Amino acid sequence: MSKQEVGPLGHVAVDDCCPGLLAAPLGEEQAVELARVFKALGDPVRLRLLSMIASREGGEICVCDLTPAFDLSQPTISHHLKQLRQAGLIDCERRGTWVYYWLLPEATDRLAGLLTRPGRPLPAETSA
Amino acid sequence: MSKQEVGPLGHVAVDDCCPGLLAAPLGEEQAVELARVFKALGDPVRLRLLSMIASREGGEICVCDLTPAFDLSQPTISHHLKQLRQAGLIDCERRGTWVYYWLLPEATDRLAGLLTRPGRPLPAETSA
Repeated sequence: MSKQEVGPLGHVAVDDCCPGLLAAPLGEEQAVELARVFKALGDPVRLRLLSMIASREGGEICVCDLTPAFDLSQPTISHHLKQLRQAGLIDCERRGTWVYYWLLPEATDRLAGLLTRPGRPLPAETSA
Repeated sequence: MSKQEVGPLGHVAVDDCCPGLLAAPLGEEQAVELARVFKALGDPVRLRLLSMIASREGGEICVCDLTPAFDLSQPTISHHLKQLRQAGLIDCERRGTWVYYWLLPEATDRLAGLLTRPGRPLPAETSA
């Protein structure tokens, strides 16, 4: 099958299709799908939400613990969270009153891999 | 000095200020600066330009070799290249008629590092 596989959350299984962003010219379709993920990261509120979710001890966080960190309405926060979810970066589950969010680490692993130069030591290995 | 250092091309020396996007909640200022870089990547044409520049043998590419790959005008391509340059991802130099572009690999290394989970093996090491 030559078509790209798009996951249930709309993200592409990038490592199935691409040798990496820096190793060879990206195809048009891959670029469109990957740009959607980077666009989701291209907003300060979404970056902060993602880092709060990703760094939460226990691996998940209630939306009720996210909202107070921002001077924004609950619907605005929910809209940003939806964009992160549609980009395949996080997932969520409703439990009673609240929605709980967690990172989909395979998505950030994939981006890290795509941004890693082929055959080079990775930053984590070379930093003092 | 507690202020963020912003490089000559407008990008933040992220690894001087942040433990990583996934390890701890990002500060507001860091999020603003980092979002600018991800926003630059959040466009399919810019992603394709970046991958063409990054994967070019010899490490640099003439704008005259970039433009024919796109069904876009030279000014549009130049605008996208300017956005990548302002995000600190590439740099360029005019030589005679043409402008030559190259990747600033420390910028992509930094993003890869920020997207790498603390204490986890990296994708390049675990893939078959």
